[in-house]
Amino acid sequence: MFDAELAGDLPFINELCERVRSYRGKMLRPALLLLTAKALGRCDRRAHTLAAVVEMVHMATLVHDDVLDEASQRRKQPTVAAVEGNIAAVLLGDYLISHAFHLCSSLDSQFASRRVGATTNIVCEGELLQNLHGGDMALSEAQYFDIVRRKTGVLTAVACELGAYAGDASDEVMAAAYEFGLASGIAFQIVDDVLDIVGDTSSVGKTLGQDVLLGKLTLPTILFMRAGNEDSRRLAESLASGRAMNRQQLADELQARGCIDDALSVARSYVGRAQEYLGSLPAGPARECLMGMADFIMRRRF
Amino acid sequence: MFDAELAGDLPFINELCERVRSYRGKMLRPALLLLTAKALGRCDRRAHTLAAVVEMVHMATLVHDDVLDEASQRRKQPTVAAVEGNIAAVLLGDYLISHAFHLCSSLDSQFASRRVGATTNIVCEGELLQNLHGGDMALSEAQYFDIVRRKTGVLTAVACELGAYAGDASDEVMAAAYEFGLASGIAFQIVDDVLDIVGDTSSVGKTLGQDVLLGKLTLPTILFMRAGNEDSRRLAESLASGRAMNRQQLADELQARGCIDDALSVARSYVGRAQEYLGSLPAGPARECLMGMADFIMRRRF
Repeated sequence: MFDAELAGDLPFINELCERVRSYRGKMLRPALLLLTAKALGRCDRRAHTLAAVVEMVHMATLVHDDVLDEASQRRKQPTVAAVEGNIAAVLLGDYLISHAFHLCSSLDSQFASRRVGATTNIVCEGELLQNLHGGDMALSEAQYFDIVRRKTGVLTAVACELGAYAGDASDEVMAAAYEFGLASGIAFQIVDDVLDIVGDTSSVGKTLGQDVLLGKLTLPTILFMRAGNEDSRRLAESLASGRAMNRQQLADELQARGCIDDALSVARSYVGRAQEYLGSLPAGPARECLMGMADFIMRRRF
Repeated sequence: MFDAELAGDLPFINELCERVRSYRGKMLRPALLLLTAKALGRCDRRAHTLAAVVEMVHMATLVHDDVLDEASQRRKQPTVAAVEGNIAAVLLGDYLISHAFHLCSSLDSQFASRRVGATTNIVCEGELLQNLHGGDMALSEAQYFDIVRRKTGVLTAVACELGAYAGDASDEVMAAAYEFGLASGIAFQIVDDVLDIVGDTSSVGKTLGQDVLLGKLTLPTILFMRAGNEDSRRLAESLASGRAMNRQQLADELQARGCIDDALSVARSYVGRAQEYLGSLPAGPARECLMGMADFIMRRRF
């Protein structure tokens, strides 16, 4: 469905979309959506359509993110922005978001269109907030979580909510599925931010160290800053100056202070919260699989 | 409705949207939509909503266009890209397109969402095509019209179609309204391209000469190239080299060869075609106004 929606009569656009295909990695969001629907005993064409929609929205954010972050590699491939230029990447992202809404509007009801539109509104707010706070060495934990919730949380949340919707769930179950996705998404992003600092480029497969390079504080560095001592002032100065930092050295310092472990245990508590919400779904292999996916968030190295 | 949809809980985003407000100029697309609905005797909340949607889509394309074209001025104001940077402009464009779809999904039926989604798919194709042909000195008239139809034509077309839809028109009348908008939109773009060369910056109010600067052929220069003589080879060389050209000198040469007049008479023939389609709408002041708007396309100097 993803490929069919994007296929058009212009060969060079089909080639650009080929590139996006190689971005598809874990397919976390469609997997969450389909498993939620399956847990409820109904995973049909509507669920499949919505799974393609949320993945397409996610791809659009990745393509625009690579322009904003000046990243050169994603999923072990050069980014669209790096190969085709920023203009093509901006337009390709627009093309993807347009097709996502178009595909969503093929369903009988407006419900999913409304939820997806409301969600992408918030995702854009998150990205704008993040941009506003670029280089802000006073970013608080609360502000970080606000950005993470908007930028990453709500899209995984709506994926699970729409899975429940496709499975004809009650409003209560849809709300629980939303909360499961929200907490999972936040945990996922914290781990992503940790991997940006301590991950292994060859297994993560994308440009790492971008946050530090762009002066973007994330949970581990925010926790480090909180000490307010000589070391944290030094880090703030070097991040704010835009001077390239030695990623390994930063990772070692953060590890030594326990900031990596602390960030990971915050992520773990979100995973625990997410798993509690799964109690609202009927027991069975699909729900077990969702449990396992939440566990996987903490184990992943890519 | 436009302002209410964009208002959010983040003050800095509201300020960014303030800037977009100053972009609003002729409001051609919502005017066409509302007048079409009015001509059919029914211009209610649904029409108002759709008018805000098409204007919001148009604003999104302007904001992203200014990133792509490196334009510094629009509607006598500095562009978002120039003041806030390209990243903020990319994200603000995304924010606008997301809100356009969100607003559209507030209607009862999916019909408009489908039509808007199908239209923005084509608009993105047009922008991608235009980018692909940047610096292409062999761009044919047919390729130019293909780009113009996709990039500009289909959005004015769907504005008129949705006006007819809001006015409860038959499929035949909706199709005629679409064709009226398509021909008007194409004429409008041809005149826009002519103004980029011969317009007066102070009255047009946006950065002019960008097409020539970015090596983008438009109808007047394509007609000039067609001669295939020494002068056209010289123009092609100087456009392709990216060397800044003297806009006045180019304008004089194109005028002398009749290429400006020829381009304008092509635009005039599209206006004539558009006006014929208006015969499908009931006679009355709203239809007269649409006739006048089509005439205005040829008269406008901004």
